[in-house]
Amino acid sequence: MSLALWRSPLARSLHRNRSLAYARYLQLATVRADGRPANRTVVFRGFLENTNQLKFITDIRSQKAVEINLYPWGEICWYFPKTREQFRIAGKLVLVVAEYPDAELCTARGTAWQELSEGARSQFAWPDPGADKADASAFDAASPDAIKPLPNFCLLLLEPETVDLLELRGEPQNRSLFGRDGEGNWFVRSVNP
Amino acid sequence: MSLALWRSPLARSLHRNRSLAYARYLQLATVRADGRPANRTVVFRGFLENTNQLKFITDIRSQKAVEINLYPWGEICWYFPKTREQFRIAGKLVLVVAEYPDAELCTARGTAWQELSEGARSQFAWPDPGADKADASAFDAASPDAIKPLPNFCLLLLEPETVDLLELRGEPQNRSLFGRDGEGNWFVRSVNP
Repeated sequence: MSLALWRSPLARSLHRNRSLAYARYLQLATVRADGRPANRTVVFRGFLENTNQLKFITDIRSQKAVEINLYPWGEICWYFPKTREQFRIAGKLVLVVAEYPDAELCTARGTAWQELSEGARSQFAWPDPGADKADASAFDAASPDAIKPLPNFCLLLLEPETVDLLELRGEPQNRSLFGRDGEGNWFVRSVNP
Repeated sequence: MSLALWRSPLARSLHRNRSLAYARYLQLATVRADGRPANRTVVFRGFLENTNQLKFITDIRSQKAVEINLYPWGEICWYFPKTREQFRIAGKLVLVVAEYPDAELCTARGTAWQELSEGARSQFAWPDPGADKADASAFDAASPDAIKPLPNFCLLLLEPETVDLLELRGEPQNRSLFGRDGEGNWFVRSVNP
């Protein structure tokens, strides 16, 4: 596989904003069961090896997992404060649950779990997200195993179809739309901001 | 009208993050004509006077205006980096176009235009957003009038229905859901993060 055309500007933005931990935070929009949009912050966990798919993690008990199961389309909006660039990346979402029918993705799910901090792993042992706040003691669960993911842990992948890059620096600003041709090759065109 | 329950924590977050210009940037999710989600950064322009409605601006020629005309629901995701808080605010969107059939909102549209910088106003005289990039000279239009908005300028309002506040500081994190009862009064409940 070859790196998509937008990977190089994105890598540059990540590098130039590396001093800000929250430059790896971005917003993922999905569609709810009732057709209304939903939007929340997620943490970028790198790319799935040998692909252009972005990795995130989530809990199968979360609303976003429910929404993605019903309608697996998303758009992330990723704003880089230092360089004043915005990447909007739209595509199909894949929720890699426990016993997902693809051995490689199951391995990737395990690796994503192992790469988490102990604190991040323990959140998957917490009481149901969104339910009435449980007693403090319910959050004191023993640390989950560091190798084998808890069953509710999911790897979440975004397979980009289009990328809309806006560079706010410049007068007028630069805006580039990336897409794929009939053979799956990425192209880019400059458009008005 | 009374300030909604979530106004006070939001005002506090804005104050504590005031040193970051981009703390007033947030992400607005809408739904496209094909049913897929869309997501982009917008700038918070304060509250509409005597209401709990958030103000933004947009161009009637932009995709988001097209989407909102078709389906006026949105969710903003607003992350405050310094205090590590996230506000997700969902509600109905109102696009206040030229000659909108409400005199007060027309006045508010004019005020929003007058409060823009000259640079921001001139962007509404630029060539069609999203079209193939025009020659540089097309961006050199004369400065638009500072009082009377260009016809494509829109005030965009979000009337909140629910607010989901997540405070990442704390172990476990605090999460509060704000909603309205049958009589329109706001209530809040603590839920698991």
